[in-house]
Amino acid sequence: MFKEKFREGVISAKQFDREDIEYILKKAKEMNETKNSNLLHGKILATLFFEPSTRTRLSFESAMYRLGGSVIGFHSGDVSSIKKGESIADTIRTVENYSDCIVIRHSLEGAATMAAKFAKIPIINAGSGSGEHPTQALLDLLTINEEIGSLDGLNIGLMGDLKYGRTVHSLSILLSKFDVNIYFISPTELRMRNRDIDFLQQRQVKYKEITDYRKILNILDVLYMTRIQKERFADSEEYERIKGIYIFRQDDLKETKDNFRLLHPLPRITEISPNVDNSEKAIYFKQTYYGIPMRKALLAELMIE
Amino acid sequence: MFKEKFREGVISAKQFDREDIEYILKKAKEMNETKNSNLLHGKILATLFFEPSTRTRLSFESAMYRLGGSVIGFHSGDVSSIKKGESIADTIRTVENYSDCIVIRHSLEGAATMAAKFAKIPIINAGSGSGEHPTQALLDLLTINEEIGSLDGLNIGLMGDLKYGRTVHSLSILLSKFDVNIYFISPTELRMRNRDIDFLQQRQVKYKEITDYRKILNILDVLYMTRIQKERFADSEEYERIKGIYIFRQDDLKETKDNFRLLHPLPRITEISPNVDNSEKAIYFKQTYYGIPMRKALLAELMIE
Amino acid sequence: MFKEKFREGVISAKQFDREDIEYILKKAKEMNETKNSNLLHGKILATLFFEPSTRTRLSFESAMYRLGGSVIGFHSGDVSSIKKGESIADTIRTVENYSDCIVIRHSLEGAATMAAKFAKIPIINAGSGSGEHPTQALLDLLTINEEIGSLDGLNIGLMGDLKYGRTVHSLSILLSKFDVNIYFISPTELRMRNRDIDFLQQRQVKYKEITDYRKILNILDVLYMTRIQKERFADSEEYERIKGIYIFRQDDLKETKDNFRLLHPLPRITEISPNVDNSEKAIYFKQTYYGIPMRKALLAELMIE
Repeated sequence: MFKEKFREGVISAKQFDREDIEYILKKAKEMNETKNSNLLHGKILATLFFEPSTRTRLSFESAMYRLGGSVIGFHSGDVSSIKKGESIADTIRTVENYSDCIVIRHSLEGAATMAAKFAKIPIINAGSGSGEHPTQALLDLLTINEEIGSLDGLNIGLMGDLKYGRTVHSLSILLSKFDVNIYFISPTELRMRNRDIDFLQQRQVKYKEITDYRKILNILDVLYMTRIQKERFADSEEYERIKGIYIFRQDDLKETKDNFRLLHPLPRITEISPNVDNSEKAIYFKQTYYGIPMRKALLAELMIE
Repeated sequence: MFKEKFREGVISAKQFDREDIEYILKKAKEMNETKNSNLLHGKILATLFFEPSTRTRLSFESAMYRLGGSVIGFHSGDVSSIKKGESIADTIRTVENYSDCIVIRHSLEGAATMAAKFAKIPIINAGSGSGEHPTQALLDLLTINEEIGSLDGLNIGLMGDLKYGRTVHSLSILLSKFDVNIYFISPTELRMRNRDIDFLQQRQVKYKEITDYRKILNILDVLYMTRIQKERFADSEEYERIKGIYIFRQDDLKETKDNFRLLHPLPRITEISPNVDNSEKAIYFKQTYYGIPMRKALLAELMIE
Repeated sequence: MFKEKFREGVISAKQFDREDIEYILKKAKEMNETKNSNLLHGKILATLFFEPSTRTRLSFESAMYRLGGSVIGFHSGDVSSIKKGESIADTIRTVENYSDCIVIRHSLEGAATMAAKFAKIPIINAGSGSGEHPTQALLDLLTINEEIGSLDGLNIGLMGDLKYGRTVHSLSILLSKFDVNIYFISPTELRMRNRDIDFLQQRQVKYKEITDYRKILNILDVLYMTRIQKERFADSEEYERIKGIYIFRQDDLKETKDNFRLLHPLPRITEISPNVDNSEKAIYFKQTYYGIPMRKALLAELMIE
């Protein structure tokens, strides 16, 4: 069923029903039980990173190697044919002859969709512009599910740059399949886009938009922070002001519930104080750990017939 | 025989007799029958790309992985020791200690020859300046042979930048071993170089040089297009004019024979209209596919004793 | 014992007692007996090169593949998260979830030490600023030991940029555990740093600092040359003068003993004349060869429990 439905790949969180999410969470949990296997021996993953990324690329490559497969690819800096003016469609129709599955990151929001349209092999969207980053959202859910024990009944805060943050877009879509209260916490300038809010309203998701996280910190089960990017602000004083408000400090921990957990897709710059790291409530490094079983599960589903 | 003759590697199309070509075409055909093997398990291929390339590098790496081997290497952008001023000879005498075969791409025409002179392991020329690109030419022949069924008795057009186009140089040399009529189609400024023409005349190859492909389109079995590079023109108006003439459009297909096939080493910019892609006469993406069995065959011949 | 002692990795030559050196030399010698194995099948090495390097990175990667393992990583040029402002500590706490051992090169002297402080998996220092490069020094010792037959009783010259040359720093530390006479040969501006000299004095190493290698060439068993870097000189005339003095030429070979051997960590620019290369006394390319067994030995010790 999952294999059949996702034959063309994982492009958007919107492809996932609750049933699909639960299935892949279960598969990821199974993958976590054995470090290595030869499930994908002989298979080749192509990682096409038109935009910089360390974390996501290395995570996919590690997952592929843990399953016994091989990896080819390029990353920004040596995107040579691209520089020669080649279209995404042509790149895909070439690389599909060299590999069994393609992971693509691109600065254009529609890049992964376009790639899937032309490809005969599965495409995985590893971040497309300000649009989506579905596999990050899936590993975020896995982290919450494994560390808190459930996805239903939670108060979840999503904080930071909600306008351009693709991980937040995909995560809110996935969360809409569960019984959660979402708190969107951002400066006014970086609120969720109307189209994303419309989608959640249609699905009758319970949400609130606020600007000060401190007001709800004591009721949150999960706070998911993201980086506020300087380049989004015309006025650098405005940036400095906002940046200063959205710094999670050790003192903030005291306000939180015992089972509160702090997540962040990383990289983190100054938005979480380093002295928060040692708290057992801070699980953003564990979160990177869960990327491996989730991506192993996805790669296996997409490449094994 | 082949192994013995190519012990030092594949540097130029001129190394190949008709017998050698037929042998490697047969081997490539065999390689095409099984996707994966462990023929080169434990072997390491080094891919040294001093000049940008996506297609050729990924093709070699995929071929190596399909045979169970490993790959190390660098590509332009991180050519660090080079930036420190190291000579090709020194790089080769270092990397040969880390690998079993070296694939080299370089902007200097004599780079691969120089590399082979110093190396104790086989060298493969993956493009040297405006000189040669022999493995591309071999996969071009494999494509024609598999898709048309023969190499003898064909009318073949080579079109575009014939002066600086290294794939065309290598391909015309290989074709000279077969009974073909070659049509060199280019603007006057980008005609085949004298030395290349001299070589073909010595081998009594039947060829014509023309500027308008439309005049012979109806007799061609194969049209091999290449990209015209803007940087070759001093006058950009001249470039725009010529670029406009050498665009293959859907209407052109109507003039061609039923068994006509259109090839292109890619990347393609604007010289073939996208609506040509869906014709079964357009086989440039299949052509990238044939790169894998051809390079598997070459790697196996060079690395297995 | 070795495994236990180096559980956190190889950060500095100062970690090594004579016993440790002899142990790893023996292990490297054993590794040299078989080209390939599956000792590290299923293990993943992460190579994080914040600073350019071809030789060292490819050497580690080749060693890992010869042992049947896999490699992920990045190298300068695509150090993306870094560009986003991430700290070394965060990068390490992420990448340790993707791999079994991390090799790090960084322009800051304390980078590897910092990495080891945060990591739960072993860290290998592959060059940190002007500080150390311990695995290079170990392969240098292996080269001397295998090619000359002993490490005790030798007259060894270390020549070139002794101030900023990290390989020389690590090598002199390792040599201090053996009965050798060290000749530090450099222009006054590039003498060994006081702290390095202090370390050797404490260990009662026999050493001399001189500026003209010709005066002692006839008594040396080993001359270890390094590159003099132009960027170290404020005055380019001064650089040209000094560069001219420190060129080893064919004529110099005549002054040397029969068993004299010339080493260089490479890349070499002009400091050794190319016509020296063919002498059996010139063993800098063999030296790169010995990098593989030494790094195989280290990787196996650090990753196998």
